[in-house]
Amino acid sequence: MPDRLGPPRSEPLIGRLAIIGLGLIGSSIARAVSHLKLAGTLVVSDASPDVRRRLGELGLGDVVADTAAEAAAGADMVILCVPVGACGTVAAEIAGALKPGAIVSDVGSVKGAVVAAVAPHLPAGVHLVPAHPVAGTEHSGPDAGFATLFHNRWSIVTPPDGADPDAVAVTRGLWEAMGAMVEIMTPQHHDLVLAITSHVPHLIAYNIVGTAADLETVTQSEVIKFSAGGFRDFTRIAASDPTMWRDVFLTNKDAVLEMLGRFNEDLAALQRAIRWGDGDALFDLFTRTRAIRRSIIDLGQETAAPDFGRRQGESKDG
Amino acid sequence: MPDRLGPPRSEPLIGRLAIIGLGLIGSSIARAVSHLKLAGTLVVSDASPDVRRRLGELGLGDVVADTAAEAAAGADMVILCVPVGACGTVAAEIAGALKPGAIVSDVGSVKGAVVAAVAPHLPAGVHLVPAHPVAGTEHSGPDAGFATLFHNRWSIVTPPDGADPDAVAVTRGLWEAMGAMVEIMTPQHHDLVLAITSHVPHLIAYNIVGTAADLETVTQSEVIKFSAGGFRDFTRIAASDPTMWRDVFLTNKDAVLEMLGRFNEDLAALQRAIRWGDGDALFDLFTRTRAIRRSIIDLGQETAAPDFGRRQGESKDG
Repeated sequence: MPDRLGPPRSEPLIGRLAIIGLGLIGSSIARAVSHLKLAGTLVVSDASPDVRRRLGELGLGDVVADTAAEAAAGADMVILCVPVGACGTVAAEIAGALKPGAIVSDVGSVKGAVVAAVAPHLPAGVHLVPAHPVAGTEHSGPDAGFATLFHNRWSIVTPPDGADPDAVAVTRGLWEAMGAMVEIMTPQHHDLVLAITSHVPHLIAYNIVGTAADLETVTQSEVIKFSAGGFRDFTRIAASDPTMWRDVFLTNKDAVLEMLGRFNEDLAALQRAIRWGDGDALFDLFTRTRAIRRSIIDLGQETAAPDFGRRQGESKDG
Repeated sequence: MPDRLGPPRSEPLIGRLAIIGLGLIGSSIARAVSHLKLAGTLVVSDASPDVRRRLGELGLGDVVADTAAEAAAGADMVILCVPVGACGTVAAEIAGALKPGAIVSDVGSVKGAVVAAVAPHLPAGVHLVPAHPVAGTEHSGPDAGFATLFHNRWSIVTPPDGADPDAVAVTRGLWEAMGAMVEIMTPQHHDLVLAITSHVPHLIAYNIVGTAADLETVTQSEVIKFSAGGFRDFTRIAASDPTMWRDVFLTNKDAVLEMLGRFNEDLAALQRAIRWGDGDALFDLFTRTRAIRRSIIDLGQETAAPDFGRRQGESKDG
C-alpha cells in the first residue's frame, strides 16, 4: 500500500506536529505522516489511557504525550481529531501551551460549530484553519486507521474570515501530501453540503435499522437473514461511531433539519405516488437517480464493480 | 468461480427447463443451471429481440425460443424472470402451451401479487410454486448475471395454499443446487419481510438521491464530489432497475406503506431529538444499531471488511 502514497519527503513539511485523538482519522493521519516523513517530530496524545498504551504498542508517533496540553506545547501545528463536541474543551486545555504562530486544525464533520467552539480559546497569533477529510470507514479506534485513507478523497478546508494565507497553505499542503484533493469553502457552506451528502444519509440509515429492530410482525432474525435485499448496506453506515455522530447532529442542527425537511417532503410525494399507483412518477425518479451514481464512479469516488465488489475474486462464467 | 458451485450433476434435476426473461436474475439462473447441468434441456426466451440475439452470442441456453409460449411448450418447469408487473401477461401467454404436471415458478420480489396475477391463468394440473432469491446487484441485463449470484444467499419459496408437495420439493432442490439456502413462508409474510429488508430501503435510497439532485443551495457537482461521506452507498441502491422497482412498489403497496409509516414515525422522533438537543436518545439508537450489523456479518450475509472491502488490496501499514 505505501507505494500509492509515494516516497518519503527529504524535508518535512512541518517541524513539530501534534495529533490529539487517535481514532480512525487521527491514527490514519499519524500513519500517513510517519510513512511520508511529513513532520520533523510527531507527537500523539489521547484522553484514554488504553489508547495511549496502544499507541506505544503500534509504534504510532515519535512521542506519546500524557495530556493534550503537553502534546501541544511547542508544536507548529496541532490537529484535533476528537468528536466535534469535544473540540472546545480540548482547545481550552491546550490554549496556554500553544506557541505564537502555531496552526490549530481539526478533522470534524461539522465546521461552523468547531469554529465557534475553538476560536474564542485561541491566543492572538495562533491560526485556526479547520479541515474535514471526507473519508472514513464504519470502524473506529487506533487500530482501524490506515495510511491511504485519504488517498484520492476530498479534504475540505474552511478558513474563517481573515485567516492567515500561509497557515491555510500549510494545511492544504499537508492534506495534499497525504494524497487528498483540497477544496476551500466557508464553514457555513460546508455544513450545508455535508448535511445532504453525509449527515442525513447517516440519520436515515440509523433510523431504518432502528425501525427494523423494533418490528413485531417481522422477527429480527428474518431482518438479518434476508438483509441482502438492500437493508445490509444501511447497516454499514449505521455501525459508525455513536459519539461522533451524536455530536454531528447536535452541532449541525440547522442544516440537518433543513435537509431533512426536504427529504421528508420528497418522501411524502413518493408515498402518495405509491398509494395512488402513479407508476410514471416512480419510474421517472428511479431513472434519474441512476445518472448520479454514474457521475460518482466517473469521478473516481466509487468502484464500478457490482455490489461494491463485495464478491471480488469471483469471475463471471457463461 | 465455478469451483464454489461444485461439480456438474451426473443426472439433471429437471428434464426441460424454460427461463423466460434473461436479465440479471434469469441469466444468472441460466449460467448456474448450465454449469451444473441441472436441466436436460435449457430453453431461454426474452421479449426483447436484442436480448435474444445476445443470448446466442453468450451461448446461454440450449435453445433460444422466439416467444414465451414456444419456450414453455413441453417444459417440466418454467421460471418467469420478468418484472413483477409482467408476470400475469406472460402467464396468460404460456397457459395454453403448458403440459400437465408442469411447475410454474418465478423470481419476483413481491409474492402476493404474483400469485394473484398468475394463478388464474394456469390450467388444472399445473403447479404454481413462486420463489424469490434474495440476491442481486445494481446491474441489469443478460451480461450482468453470474453463476454464483445465489451462493450462500436465501431463496424464499412461497407455495400457495394446497400446493403440490412434490412441486415444492423440486423448486427447493433447484435453488439448493445453485448454492442457495431455502426458507418456506406464505406469500403475505414474505411481502411484509421484504418491505422492511428491501423495498423501503430502496425507496428511501431513491428518495435521498432525488432530494440531493434537486437542491439549489448545494450544487450537483458538490454532491458528487463529497459523496464519500455516506451518500454514495445510497446511490448504488438507487441505480437498480427502474422497471423492476416501479412494479415492486405498485404491487406491494400495502406492506410498503405500513413499513414506511413506521419509518416516518421513528424519523419524526429522531428529528425531534435533534431539534431539542436530546443527545442521549441519539446515542442510544446509534449504539443499538451496531449490533444488527454484527449479526448480519456473523451470519455470513455480509463482509466484515471496512467500507465493504472497496479498497481491497490495501494493507494497513503502521
